Amino acid sequence: MKAAPSPRAAPGPSAQPPRIDGARLWSRLMDMAAIGATAQGGCDRQALTDLDRAGRELLLRWGEAAGCSTRSDAIGNLFLRRAGREPALPAVLTGSHLDTQPTGGKFDGVYGVLAGLEAIETLNDLGRLTRHPLEVCVWTNEEGCRFPVAMMGSAVWSGRLALAAAHALTDRAGVSVREELLRFGVDVAAPVVRAPVKAALEVHIEQGPVLEQRGLPIGVVTGVQHMCRHEVTILGQEAHAGPTPMDLRRDPVRVLAEALPALYAAAARRGPDARLTVGIIETSPGSPNTVPGRLRFTVDLRHPDAGQYRALGEEAQAIVHGALARHSLGGSMRMVWEAPGVQFDPGCVAAVRGAAAALGYPAREMVSGPGHDTSNTAAVVPTAMIFVPCAGGLSHNEAETASPEELTAGANVLLNALLALAD
Amino acid sequence: MKAAPSPRAAPGPSAQPPRIDGARLWSRLMDMAAIGATAQGGCDRQALTDLDRAGRELLLRWGEAAGCSTRSDAIGNLFLRRAGREPALPAVLTGSHLDTQPTGGKFDGVYGVLAGLEAIETLNDLGRLTRHPLEVCVWTNEEGCRFPVAMMGSAVWSGRLALAAAHALTDRAGVSVREELLRFGVDVAAPVVRAPVKAALEVHIEQGPVLEQRGLPIGVVTGVQHMCRHEVTILGQEAHAGPTPMDLRRDPVRVLAEALPALYAAAARRGPDARLTVGIIETSPGSPNTVPGRLRFTVDLRHPDAGQYRALGEEAQAIVHGALARHSLGGSMRMVWEAPGVQFDPGCVAAVRGAAAALGYPAREMVSGPGHDTSNTAAVVPTAMIFVPCAGGLSHNEAETASPEELTAGANVLLNALLALAD
Repeated sequence: MKAAPSPRAAPGPSAQPPRIDGARLWSRLMDMAAIGATAQGGCDRQALTDLDRAGRELLLRWGEAAGCSTRSDAIGNLFLRRAGREPALPAVLTGSHLDTQPTGGKFDGVYGVLAGLEAIETLNDLGRLTRHPLEVCVWTNEEGCRFPVAMMGSAVWSGRLALAAAHALTDRAGVSVREELLRFGVDVAAPVVRAPVKAALEVHIEQGPVLEQRGLPIGVVTGVQHMCRHEVTILGQEAHAGPTPMDLRRDPVRVLAEALPALYAAAARRGPDARLTVGIIETSPGSPNTVPGRLRFTVDLRHPDAGQYRALGEEAQAIVHGALARHSLGGSMRMVWEAPGVQFDPGCVAAVRGAAAALGYPAREMVSGPGHDTSNTAAVVPTAMIFVPCAGGLSHNEAETASPEELTAGANVLLNALLALAD
Repeated sequence: MKAAPSPRAAPGPSAQPPRIDGARLWSRLMDMAAIGATAQGGCDRQALTDLDRAGRELLLRWGEAAGCSTRSDAIGNLFLRRAGREPALPAVLTGSHLDTQPTGGKFDGVYGVLAGLEAIETLNDLGRLTRHPLEVCVWTNEEGCRFPVAMMGSAVWSGRLALAAAHALTDRAGVSVREELLRFGVDVAAPVVRAPVKAALEVHIEQGPVLEQRGLPIGVVTGVQHMCRHEVTILGQEAHAGPTPMDLRRDPVRVLAEALPALYAAAARRGPDARLTVGIIETSPGSPNTVPGRLRFTVDLRHPDAGQYRALGEEAQAIVHGALARHSLGGSMRMVWEAPGVQFDPGCVAAVRGAAAALGYPAREMVSGPGHDTSNTAAVVPTAMIFVPCAGGLSHNEAETASPEELTAGANVLLNALLALAD
């Protein structure tokens, strides 16, 4: 149906959009995956380990070969810069992270970094210079599994986390971020200067099942949902299962029995974007013939819409407290963690939407379930994200995988959205 | 309203029923409680320990002083015999156990033994000989906490457990029942002969809250309820709480949310004697932001009526399997333990009921929640039980306690029921 794209198409509204070299991208993904490869086909390349360093060095070699200038900031974030036609203009940024979970996959993070590099390579191949400079970044310690603050590097960069606090984080062996950065040769005393940025984009595997289930190659990510976690404790009274009549029990499971269906129904009333997860239920003392004296469960609530999110949280509180009151049991529902949602920049989202349309990729707008470095960048610069499907929605798992075609499609959208923003 | 009882009242329909010496009973309970007394006011006198031996020896001294002949069988069960007017007639048996839980109380078991001895002492005081002999028994290892078969001695006596199997049981240190019995001087090679028994009675603290809550001193126990334990496993699929829409989840908690209220409702439809206990609920992997891949819960079901018990079990199965099917999740509901109920002998129950009425004690008929040695004796001889209240329904607990007045009332009922059966 379409004419074959000309490899050197000149920019213009009627020209075919440029496309990246999917084979080169895939080959580099596999080269990077070899660093820290696990027996089960995944990756163990945790933040600021020797393997992470080897991954960063491989990327720097590729970036330098592509003509980029490179630099690191005081928290170890890497930046590969391709000059623009007007050097004084702020850069358009893209990137992600190279660190992985201990039993992570080949694509989470890495894909966003290498797709950014691939955009630069493609522009080099096309001999095409953008008006704004382009930068590919690698954020330090996105995973937060070795040093216990996720999205650490982007948090420091965006001014949401003090550099000294990040430097002081230690792993389980007591080794600090600062020590590891010094070992890597990073100038930890350098001033934290955020170079001017016009916009930031990140392409990432979805880490969820929506795109795969809907048969769509591209997700236009409009934000990150609001999310919080509650702990519910219900205090009952231990009693022997045999002699104690039902009406003389103080059974916390009855409160659970009343609250659970009501909680699911409340989430359903908030539409398909609402998420309610009861990940932990624990009874104590945990004996099959003893009415539990205590029951604990967690409620994770998420919604992209601030009003719906707040209403769902209030309704959950009312459900739990109502059930406690009806059964005359003590207890509490406490919010133990909250991450406010992020609305991405309409201009950046439009650039992503436009690029997918120009390339002819079916796409849907969606919000991100997990947090990403973009949650930090969005606080200080216009930001958006692109998602591609991953098999079975699986991530943080050695079996994580994605198809070369869909990875290529995501990188094509990134390239064209970067062009829209940088020209 | 009543004339003071004559201490030497002759038997007869119009005579005041005889009463035990509550002060002597209480004093002996406290003497026995001193053997293995714990700092928190309870007792640790586990089966076949030196402390159990000391308790047995104290009882034998009291029994011999009361004119009883004493013997032990090959599993260490003790029998204190008071001759009857017709020595060839089968004995009327009463008793319980002297062993305790590691953090047990002063009354569980011990009370039934010492109330039996008190009945004999009272008859001695009254100079009154029954037609049938009376025997007070001490069953070995009722608790099953040191050697892991509860009601062991009565199970061997009633032919429900092979002597060799009981002898071979070992505690956590590897010491066997047989070794301990040999150390106690028991003839473990003696033939297991069950002397002829006309009827067996046992008085026990309720170990539940019913009598206390209803303000009644006496429970006329008509049997032990049917009881079983099920394990339910629900297989879901782990998924991240953030990206996974509700309709794409395989969430085992939804099955629990549907099954729990239905299970409680099913129990309620089976009347006030039904018992349903969900003592354990466990989610796996147990992370607040992961939909559980697996959920396990236990269902303990009890009912005194065989038909209602069976119907409740079938309904519980239908509820769980229906919920699994509606949510298209795999799983199972397996019965892992069952103890059939016991109907006590109507004649023995009538003797207890009549004794309580003659004494003017408000009483109610009830079934036992926990199993007792009577579950074993009822298999081979006519049996019934008497319950008295214990504070807060608390038992297997160092804080277990009961009032001297109510302990006296229970022993009075025992004495008069024994008389009704032995004369």
